[in-house]
Amino acid sequence: MRIVAADTGGAVLDENYNPIGLIATAAVLVEKPYRTAKISIVRYSNPFDYDLSGRQALKDEAFLALKLAKKVKPDVVHLDSTLGGIEIRKLDDPTIDALRISDRGKAIWHSLRKDLQPLAKKFWEETGIEVIAIGKESVAVRIAEIYAGLYSVKWGIEHGLEKGFIRIGLPRYMKVEVKDDRIFGESLDPREGGLYGELLIEKKDFGWQVYPNPIARTFMVFEIRV
Amino acid sequence: MRIVAADTGGAVLDENYNPIGLIATAAVLVEKPYRTAKISIVRYSNPFDYDLSGRQALKDEAFLALKLAKKVKPDVVHLDSTLGGIEIRKLDDPTIDALRISDRGKAIWHSLRKDLQPLAKKFWEETGIEVIAIGKESVAVRIAEIYAGLYSVKWGIEHGLEKGFIRIGLPRYMKVEVKDDRIFGESLDPREGGLYGELLIEKKDFGWQVYPNPIARTFMVFEIRV
Amino acid sequence: MRIVAADTGGAVLDENYNPIGLIATAAVLVEKPYRTAKISIVRYSNPFDYDLSGRQALKDEAFLALKLAKKVKPDVVHLDSTLGGIEIRKLDDPTIDALRISDRGKAIWHSLRKDLQPLAKKFWEETGIEVIAIGKESVAVRIAEIYAGLYSVKWGIEHGLEKGFIRIGLPRYMKVEVKDDRIFGESLDPREGGLYGELLIEKKDFGWQVYPNPIARTFMVFEIRV
Repeated sequence: MRIVAADTGGAVLDENYNPIGLIATAAVLVEKPYRTAKISIVRYSNPFDYDLSGRQALKDEAFLALKLAKKVKPDVVHLDSTLGGIEIRKLDDPTIDALRISDRGKAIWHSLRKDLQPLAKKFWEETGIEVIAIGKESVAVRIAEIYAGLYSVKWGIEHGLEKGFIRIGLPRYMKVEVKDDRIFGESLDPREGGLYGELLIEKKDFGWQVYPNPIARTFMVFEIRV
Repeated sequence: MRIVAADTGGAVLDENYNPIGLIATAAVLVEKPYRTAKISIVRYSNPFDYDLSGRQALKDEAFLALKLAKKVKPDVVHLDSTLGGIEIRKLDDPTIDALRISDRGKAIWHSLRKDLQPLAKKFWEETGIEVIAIGKESVAVRIAEIYAGLYSVKWGIEHGLEKGFIRIGLPRYMKVEVKDDRIFGESLDPREGGLYGELLIEKKDFGWQVYPNPIARTFMVFEIRV
Repeated sequence: MRIVAADTGGAVLDENYNPIGLIATAAVLVEKPYRTAKISIVRYSNPFDYDLSGRQALKDEAFLALKLAKKVKPDVVHLDSTLGGIEIRKLDDPTIDALRISDRGKAIWHSLRKDLQPLAKKFWEETGIEVIAIGKESVAVRIAEIYAGLYSVKWGIEHGLEKGFIRIGLPRYMKVEVKDDRIFGESLDPREGGLYGELLIEKKDFGWQVYPNPIARTFMVFEIRV
């Protein structure tokens, strides 16, 4: 099975380890044995001007996933919303009302589906590929999350080299290592069966550190100081 | 403490990684230090003719656990239903109504207890051994789950050698390895403190692979191809 | 960020692995990189005369945390109650009623705040340091929990050397090792990013064992036999 998935993650943190804004949306192509991405692409946000309360992330993820899916023609597209694997093109208002989710979740989807349903429907009509809301059940979505973390670190290195310092909150239970011209990241949850990712970067000289976010257990911080 | 426990697990998967039917119920005897089974027995189902919506599993587990318990006389029998450790022989209708579980859970137990309560009561009267509904709190139930996975792989190897290919979904966060004449399995959750199991098989020549189920995070797939 | 946190843990277990009473409250000073304690202090309870249903633990933790905080002047004090990081000094009755917690949780806090709110308010007025209810989100609270486990083992060794045997239930998913004159403990959850602790003890000769609590999955038992 060839899967395209997308997720958003990595946040600039303030001096109290609170998130200021999200950094990267990553879309990945995942193939058997489903442990890393064969291809990945990124769309960066401006973390210093980001509406954390908004619902922009899922839209960004859908657009980026479809951009990659148009190119690589997967069997299915996975989005990071845990609705049991329902097809987005079928999400009309009565279907949303019948979902076993919170009232707040329903309100969000009544609004989201205005953009996402026509998009998924058109994509399915043109390609036959389903876009499904599978969320945390999907290994591909988790790999996309790990790549969002890797791209956030890549952005952080460039930003840090310019400004002298940056502190980034990584996605949930993942760690990263910078080795010469590569950033290597992997899940800290062994139950996931060994998920990882890797990005090439320009080799530069700088100090970095990874450690637990003291106010967000199971989340790590990546810090760079030049 | 000597504990007998039983659990059902391991599923034949279709080409989209969805379960077709469950494979094995295992009962185990677990003794201090509670990391593996001292004795294990199995009862196979027909995964190609299995009612996944039914409640057959818990009945199979109770019968198999009592079969082993009659032989090894443990201190207690653990079943995989998380009711806080209540004694099955005491599960009459008013007691079930007073449980802090969902209405659906109550309906299931009102039906289940018709078979299980007399069985547990008779066993207790004859042996003094309690059968309790402890579920996910029990390390012995988890070891039974790991053995259900091992027996499923054993069945899968035989089935695969005959048919050329089979894909099995293992129980939650466990991995297996085939080494000569043994199947070794262990929990992928280090918080469980190192739970594992082992089965002897006939040494045969075949290729196998273990990898994450892409649509069921923290579940692994075992695949054999001759 | 310099954080003081406190937690209670470690229990004497009966022969069926059920807790009789809690052993130790630990307060810790945690500094960057937030993986262990720089300073720790302890207050022992009498586990053989302990009201497990009571709310004594959180009060003990608050008093012990403030005792340490007065000495080391941290930036913030973390208590083990998961109320989203709210400041204890602001917990008046209308604020408690507005919290998104269970009715039982509200009743407990209406009672608890009578002691804790004036305490936190006075401490804040004198030092400017906030005492917050952050609970399981805090890495410092988790490190305090690991130290409560270490102090419980230290108590257990002394008690065991006197009485010949004791069985202690450790806090959730942590293990300990006794090496000459040190007790080393660490989290079994790698998602936490490598949290650990260490205590010095008098070197003595005794046998010990760590193994899973059979009726409390993810909890380990420490046993000493002379």
